[in-house]
Amino acid sequence: MRRSQIFLRTRKEAPADEEAKNAQLLIRAGYIHKEMAGVYDYLPLGLITLGKIMDIIRQVMNEIGGQELFLSALQPKENWARSGRWHDDVIDVWFKTRTHGGQGFHMGPELGLSNTHEEAITAIMKNFVHSYKDLPVYAYQFQTKFRNEPRSKSGLLRCREFIMKDLYSFSRNDQEHQEFYEKVQAAYFKIFERLGLGKETYLTFASGGSFSQFSHEFQTITDVGEDTLLVHESKKLAINKEIYSGKVLKELQISKEELIEKKGVEVGNIFPLGTRFSEPLGLNYTDEAGKLRPVIMGCYGIGPGRVMGTIVEHFADDKGLVWPENVAPFRVYLARLGNSKTVVQAADEAYALLTQNAIGVLYDDRSVRPGEMFADADLLGLPKRVVISERTLQNSSFELKSRESDDTQLIKLDQLVQALGD
Amino acid sequence: MRRSQIFLRTRKEAPADEEAKNAQLLIRAGYIHKEMAGVYDYLPLGLITLGKIMDIIRQVMNEIGGQELFLSALQPKENWARSGRWHDDVIDVWFKTRTHGGQGFHMGPELGLSNTHEEAITAIMKNFVHSYKDLPVYAYQFQTKFRNEPRSKSGLLRCREFIMKDLYSFSRNDQEHQEFYEKVQAAYFKIFERLGLGKETYLTFASGGSFSQFSHEFQTITDVGEDTLLVHESKKLAINKEIYSGKVLKELQISKEELIEKKGVEVGNIFPLGTRFSEPLGLNYTDEAGKLRPVIMGCYGIGPGRVMGTIVEHFADDKGLVWPENVAPFRVYLARLGNSKTVVQAADEAYALLTQNAIGVLYDDRSVRPGEMFADADLLGLPKRVVISERTLQNSSFELKSRESDDTQLIKLDQLVQALGD
Repeated sequence: MRRSQIFLRTRKEAPADEEAKNAQLLIRAGYIHKEMAGVYDYLPLGLITLGKIMDIIRQVMNEIGGQELFLSALQPKENWARSGRWHDDVIDVWFKTRTHGGQGFHMGPELGLSNTHEEAITAIMKNFVHSYKDLPVYAYQFQTKFRNEPRSKSGLLRCREFIMKDLYSFSRNDQEHQEFYEKVQAAYFKIFERLGLGKETYLTFASGGSFSQFSHEFQTITDVGEDTLLVHESKKLAINKEIYSGKVLKELQISKEELIEKKGVEVGNIFPLGTRFSEPLGLNYTDEAGKLRPVIMGCYGIGPGRVMGTIVEHFADDKGLVWPENVAPFRVYLARLGNSKTVVQAADEAYALLTQNAIGVLYDDRSVRPGEMFADADLLGLPKRVVISERTLQNSSFELKSRESDDTQLIKLDQLVQALGD
Repeated sequence: MRRSQIFLRTRKEAPADEEAKNAQLLIRAGYIHKEMAGVYDYLPLGLITLGKIMDIIRQVMNEIGGQELFLSALQPKENWARSGRWHDDVIDVWFKTRTHGGQGFHMGPELGLSNTHEEAITAIMKNFVHSYKDLPVYAYQFQTKFRNEPRSKSGLLRCREFIMKDLYSFSRNDQEHQEFYEKVQAAYFKIFERLGLGKETYLTFASGGSFSQFSHEFQTITDVGEDTLLVHESKKLAINKEIYSGKVLKELQISKEELIEKKGVEVGNIFPLGTRFSEPLGLNYTDEAGKLRPVIMGCYGIGPGRVMGTIVEHFADDKGLVWPENVAPFRVYLARLGNSKTVVQAADEAYALLTQNAIGVLYDDRSVRPGEMFADADLLGLPKRVVISERTLQNSSFELKSRESDDTQLIKLDQLVQALGD
């Protein structure tokens, strides 16, 4: 992509009302735009980045047998009344609205905006699951959730509107459920590893609600995290402070002295649902012996936008964003210094060559001062910066620099693809 | 995809309250699920189909220089108050809701759900467009629109919640705008051609609102269409009856006798916006002479879900769905009759071979009666059906049938890929 062909303008200052580092930097770098507290638009670079995160998640969801679907945001009251979660004192982040009542435009029935989809997917599955032969089923989606958060000051870490990957599992019995639950655990570690957060992300024991002893969160250690964790570094696990007790320690065979208190961001969670939704909504199947049984469910979430915000918080430095390779919207920031014919020609050729070799490149073909170009390259956070100027060409070279290092090296013109390829 | 691995169950009957043929068939075939009037969920086959439609649109949008972004559904009142479209008597399909007011959970400010995004994108562009050098810009998205339709009885043709591709253009002057506007016209014809609707889709002159003589709709002729058109077949254009007059006929140099009245579904529209939004929202740029001017805008919509519904209405027959090649979720329905070792082996091999050759295939590996399998194959509407049975294997063959024909032919085992490839 040529810089001149993308609408992108970096800013020295973030909006005054934006407190969170992740949103400040993403706004300054032109990745997102703030509509209001907790509501952001994804601009071209932001959407490419979000898409890369979603693609990594999607690939792993497909590997474990997930089937992708897309459920509606508008939620009729009916299913939620059955599960007992319609009232605002049960779910305190509902956004609700009303339909037109038909002729005369009187107000019709109340509707909710999806804050989660257990009710919807359980009701749908009643059409598809009748017998043990129809199970197990694993269905997931990337879909917008709306949560009416009274405080939304953490940028992409706590939004009122955000895309969520939510996977739901439908199993015949506890054992079949448990096997899949552990499969998702492993899948989630694979995802966070590929996203560049593997090292700092801990499987965290959290409250299982009324129908399970534990649920599990995937918490990435960062100072701005809203959760307090007790981390066991060598066992690579943590306990959410909300459930910390002597009993839990004993259960997990951990002693108090081994734990360190840290802050974390919940980048994913997996939750055994048991029959919490299948029973009130009537999702049953006939087992091998002809007996009617409720389906055993689980749910598994990752917020790609929250992951994006967490990556920013974790890697960014005082110069700007720093993206891991797999997530960066482009791999290379190609900076052309000067407008002489030889420089333009060499830069155009390098751009064509990288593009042909499927190496993502943002080509800064503007006529601006080198200092401005370098500051932009740092702020945008692409993994590699390549500079072409009269001076580098005198050495028949490009200058190559990694975002996270200050060292530069000269690369011969014909070595460019090799130096930047996998 | 193996039929046994996808949650899919066809139905003989659609829900009693579903009047529209497109939704009846898509529900019976397991492509979509109805949440309520005008609100549908996309199940795996439906989402693959929708994705193919979106990919065709996206590719053409990128070809004409569109940059993809993703704007929020929650709309703060501010921008809409400026354009004068906040009130329910100006836009009568608003869904509105309210934020939490913070501590104590009093109700906070009112919010709208996006029914369109002119206001939002215009406000965003104020951060990116300052000078003539920043123009033109073309930005588009696939995003959910919410429209509180009092009557939603046409299935995917008129939804209360639906994904829309909306492109917005920002130009320096009328000429630059007009050039792009015509480029989009051509791009839209290319899209509808690829979607299989080219022949039946007419460029239709419609009302331009207060700031332009005409806008242009792309209308696909079908009896269930909500619009009445006067079609000029040889000129491949139409006039929406809403604006039909002697003056318009003269303008377009058409005589009354050449026109035939038909029903159409509006599958796309393009609209010159002039300065309707740039002026009230203050989107100006400095021209070459240093003078401040309002940006000239256009908007360009296609609803992929409505397109999907229109394709169903247009092609379906009394046996079920009929998908054009480019839109079908899979190209081939591979039906295995019987469970003998030789049949299973031959079918498994055919499935592997087609998959290796990137020919999309839904492999019916269930043990059900041939009649049930054939009825499902017809209902699902994939372009080709391949049958493997003891009888076909005795001739070292598969049986091949196109969805829209009753003729079958025998294909030698080693000719399968050749017979089904492009």
